[in-house]
Amino acid sequence: MTYKQISSTQNALIKHIVLLKEKSRERRKSGLFVVEGQREIDLALNGNYALETILFYPEIFNEEQLPKTSNETEIIEISKDVYQKIAHRETTEGIVAIAKSKSHDLSQLKLTTKNPLILIAEAPEKPGNIGALLRTADAANVDAFILANPKTDLYNPNIIRSSVGCAFTNQIATGNTEDIISFLKANNINIYSAILQDAQHYHQQDFTKASAIVVGTEADGLSQAWRDASTQNIIIPMSGKIDSMNVSVAAGILVFEAKRQRDFI
Amino acid sequence: MTYKQISSTQNALIKHIVLLKEKSRERRKSGLFVVEGQREIDLALNGNYALETILFYPEIFNEEQLPKTSNETEIIEISKDVYQKIAHRETTEGIVAIAKSKSHDLSQLKLTTKNPLILIAEAPEKPGNIGALLRTADAANVDAFILANPKTDLYNPNIIRSSVGCAFTNQIATGNTEDIISFLKANNINIYSAILQDAQHYHQQDFTKASAIVVGTEADGLSQAWRDASTQNIIIPMSGKIDSMNVSVAAGILVFEAKRQRDFI
Repeated sequence: MTYKQISSTQNALIKHIVLLKEKSRERRKSGLFVVEGQREIDLALNGNYALETILFYPEIFNEEQLPKTSNETEIIEISKDVYQKIAHRETTEGIVAIAKSKSHDLSQLKLTTKNPLILIAEAPEKPGNIGALLRTADAANVDAFILANPKTDLYNPNIIRSSVGCAFTNQIATGNTEDIISFLKANNINIYSAILQDAQHYHQQDFTKASAIVVGTEADGLSQAWRDASTQNIIIPMSGKIDSMNVSVAAGILVFEAKRQRDFI
Repeated sequence: MTYKQISSTQNALIKHIVLLKEKSRERRKSGLFVVEGQREIDLALNGNYALETILFYPEIFNEEQLPKTSNETEIIEISKDVYQKIAHRETTEGIVAIAKSKSHDLSQLKLTTKNPLILIAEAPEKPGNIGALLRTADAANVDAFILANPKTDLYNPNIIRSSVGCAFTNQIATGNTEDIISFLKANNINIYSAILQDAQHYHQQDFTKASAIVVGTEADGLSQAWRDASTQNIIIPMSGKIDSMNVSVAAGILVFEAKRQRDFI
């Protein structure tokens, strides 16, 4: 089969891909983002993301491995120069796609289990931590992962990469803290905030009820609104000299204590 | 007080600091490494690391805050150019030190509790993950943290930075897997290896006994030697679509289940 070819790094589409990778504003404006790698692209398709364009570099990527897509997806063969321009430096899979972003409005969250378990992170800064949180959310099969007051959009290429595709498998909402708290209260979901003050040990809580586990930033913790709205502040008892834990590690410990109490169902 | 001053980025000591930050071989050869930031330097001193040199940039760092050190430590005032050359780009604390590394030989590990809890990571690749593991080891106050078949030395500046000083608070050993297994067997410590095959759920183990929790790389898992030596392979039950967890998150979940069983003592 023959495909449209692009061999110039000055091509307008190629320049747009670079912009989509670098600029959150461009992603928001266009409603598009970039996915790299066959596994990630397959996961995006399985997660019902529509692909506008697939670009592959035939020296690395075998066209027979191209994912099955609708006629709406344009497939383009690219040169080595172009591939190197749009691919992440560690990526050697030879395939890149432009996908349409989804709405992550709270109003679209569907809670279908009787006692949902939700993981919420407020204003996490490092894409690598958000990726690790998304992996934990997938592994625990939480009912939803919510980003409160996000500092970056979900389609930041570093988040997508470090999530190893879990950005596409979780039910994800983003919103401001006030709206999220209203949502939780309207749905009678207990709020367990990782806050030092007036906290009880996490393992003494009953997470078998409808529960939201909420973690803040390593630097500043959670905002006042969570302190006010908390059903119970919780803490992981620590006994070291520094007692500072990576935020995604702490979230993993809390979420999997909830899973343990729920017999991992 | 007046100090020796260095204002040239071509100064031999300054060039050596750059080399110490960049080259593991240079750190090994000289037995020296670089620590940045007041808190990290204080923690290194508290951890009985000897400092050869402290360099501070007086526009940012107040000399009254200089740590109390022995006469063996030379204190040097540096210019802005020099500071920018040796400081990590995100660091703005104005203080950098050259410290003497310690031996992390297994033979020096002191296990003083009746039923020690040890965290072992084999060949972790990303300094950020090693830093997060060291933070978990500190927070759980494990008896020792052991790096098996390390791919980088402990004094890699990215490890020290991401450990937020926990590289200096834990009792740490490094060694090859065979020697570590011999050490564990000689000390009658149960080996719980995070390996999928023939695994039992982690929360069904009795971690109140002397226990080593062993995790491998995300890409390759643990080596055959751990499979052969394992008292029991363990697994975290997952129920997502991808079921891949960050290695430091998985280690945190395992170690804190052990802590929970031990009543966090």
